[in-house]
Amino acid sequence: MNKLQSIGYSIYFNNALVKLANFIKTGEYSRFFVLTDENTGKHCLPLLREHLKEFDNYDLIEIAAGEESKNIDFCIGIWKMLIDFGADRKSLLINLGGGVISDLGGFAASTFKRGIDFVHVPTTLLSQVDASVGGKTGIDLENIKNIIGTFTQPKAVFIEHEFLNSLPPRQILSGLAEMLKHGLIADVLYWNKLKSSNLKKPSAELVYHSVEIKNEVVIADPTEQGIRKSLNYGHTIGHAIETWSLMNDENPLTHGEAIAAGMICEAKLSNLKTNLDDSELKEITEMIMGLYPKYPLNRDSYETLYGIMLKDKKNQNGRINASLLTRIGQCRIDNICTEEELYASLDYYSAL
Amino acid sequence: MNKLQSIGYSIYFNNALVKLANFIKTGEYSRFFVLTDENTGKHCLPLLREHLKEFDNYDLIEIAAGEESKNIDFCIGIWKMLIDFGADRKSLLINLGGGVISDLGGFAASTFKRGIDFVHVPTTLLSQVDASVGGKTGIDLENIKNIIGTFTQPKAVFIEHEFLNSLPPRQILSGLAEMLKHGLIADVLYWNKLKSSNLKKPSAELVYHSVEIKNEVVIADPTEQGIRKSLNYGHTIGHAIETWSLMNDENPLTHGEAIAAGMICEAKLSNLKTNLDDSELKEITEMIMGLYPKYPLNRDSYETLYGIMLKDKKNQNGRINASLLTRIGQCRIDNICTEEELYASLDYYSAL
Repeated sequence: MNKLQSIGYSIYFNNALVKLANFIKTGEYSRFFVLTDENTGKHCLPLLREHLKEFDNYDLIEIAAGEESKNIDFCIGIWKMLIDFGADRKSLLINLGGGVISDLGGFAASTFKRGIDFVHVPTTLLSQVDASVGGKTGIDLENIKNIIGTFTQPKAVFIEHEFLNSLPPRQILSGLAEMLKHGLIADVLYWNKLKSSNLKKPSAELVYHSVEIKNEVVIADPTEQGIRKSLNYGHTIGHAIETWSLMNDENPLTHGEAIAAGMICEAKLSNLKTNLDDSELKEITEMIMGLYPKYPLNRDSYETLYGIMLKDKKNQNGRINASLLTRIGQCRIDNICTEEELYASLDYYSAL
Repeated sequence: MNKLQSIGYSIYFNNALVKLANFIKTGEYSRFFVLTDENTGKHCLPLLREHLKEFDNYDLIEIAAGEESKNIDFCIGIWKMLIDFGADRKSLLINLGGGVISDLGGFAASTFKRGIDFVHVPTTLLSQVDASVGGKTGIDLENIKNIIGTFTQPKAVFIEHEFLNSLPPRQILSGLAEMLKHGLIADVLYWNKLKSSNLKKPSAELVYHSVEIKNEVVIADPTEQGIRKSLNYGHTIGHAIETWSLMNDENPLTHGEAIAAGMICEAKLSNLKTNLDDSELKEITEMIMGLYPKYPLNRDSYETLYGIMLKDKKNQNGRINASLLTRIGQCRIDNICTEEELYASLDYYSAL
């Protein structure tokens, strides 16, 4: 449980920040930059700074917190700051924060001077088990999530469990949805383990196991030609619900809350299309409903949701393509879903 | 002289547009887009359209002509048009135009949905022998050329000699500078051939030979860790002069005109630092001065030029790094130049 090997880089656990300091020391970087947001600047940066005491060749870049920052304007702002600070090709960008920071910072770094090195120090449960592993960078445009981005691997990832202590319960739940997904698509034993664990603060061991599952999928298919699509389970409908909520709600859903709803809908789709047992559909539904508040959806929203799904970059030729379960622990990719089937799955969720 | 093999793709010559039509037909693309500018839309698109008669699944994206378009705003415009036209991951972008179109279109495509396929149909001599080969994409930011970009290879390049017929002499000269460079850094026989050729309209054979030289360098070092830096000969000072001219002149220098001046300065630097013979310095100077008008520079501009050079992304630790000649046909990379040496080379050019 010390580290995992990914595509040309390592994911470090256990005293990860000590390992980060070592990484910088041995990396021959001319200088480095820490990208952070208001929240992580307050709650996480002090701990990071303690481990960077011996260095004086770095600058901070702080942006506003939240998904709204994950756009081209903030990216341009980062590029300009890198220029102003005199960043050269031997510079390193350290992304300290949640998924917004790693996606945005990864994109900014992968395109600055045609690519400078970057590492992730994920500070939320969600980014520890999801965004920080896999080499996807991205920003949103015209309300479409991650529509612009690159496949670029970080040089290392440092997963520090201590950061989870400062997270509010809702942020823990947001990350937990991806952990549940990992069990559902790839590992029934892990799913069962999660069912019997204290999920208010997932242990370092559970986090490690989730990263391990995601990492194995990513290694097998880095650019999402096949099996990696299984990680999209819950996301076809979940992303649409997330976007809908961002546009309509004063206090929008977290990513995980939306994916939790999406996983229930897509469990129903799996029941309709890929032979997921009634009993397993029930098991998944009950587990998720026991953890997450129900999101109110009504039929008036379906058409808009469908329109959002059509714009999802995973689709081809205007057809909705979902990754579904054949049973708990097994996923089948490339299932074309009709509008009616999608509406039926939304009906199932709405009637709970 | 039919095609060259590059990094995972082919560069086609001789009836290249027929080969493009074949490429599209066998490529299984859901649809395609042609990126063009006002000029190529007028002078080159008609010929392309003749070869695309059998297809109806494509849309045009036209932008304003000129280096000023190579920025993030136009890139965002292209992304939005791709979204509006419903481009999916199986879409193809065809970049019809000069270096601005291939650099900008390549960057837009390489980052749209984390990368869709693109091909280049270069229509200027400069883009045929330079920008279309090598997998560099890029846009300018804050007056710094290509500061944002990716290394992404096109799926194919189609070099149609007929497009050169519509080019004004100044545009031919612009491309010619890169051809002279190819001889200077890698092939003395080619340099001698150029000296004895009609350079008002370089033959298809000369174009092919230039692409061949550039392609070999790129294959040996795709991401510019070593030998590829030789292609920067003339560009350390040339880029600075180009940027200066863009900022100060009503009718700014073309890329090639600036690089021509840069190659003379850097021949002088080579004479000072890498033992280039006096006689060869003279030969290079006379050849270039015989082709290109002299650009007036005075000492007041040197400091600004130096400041621009310092921002060049090829530098590390604030030191100017130039690729210089040891003799005609041979290049040595990684020569750190002092401010004084650079000024001496500018003095040499100014005194001609």
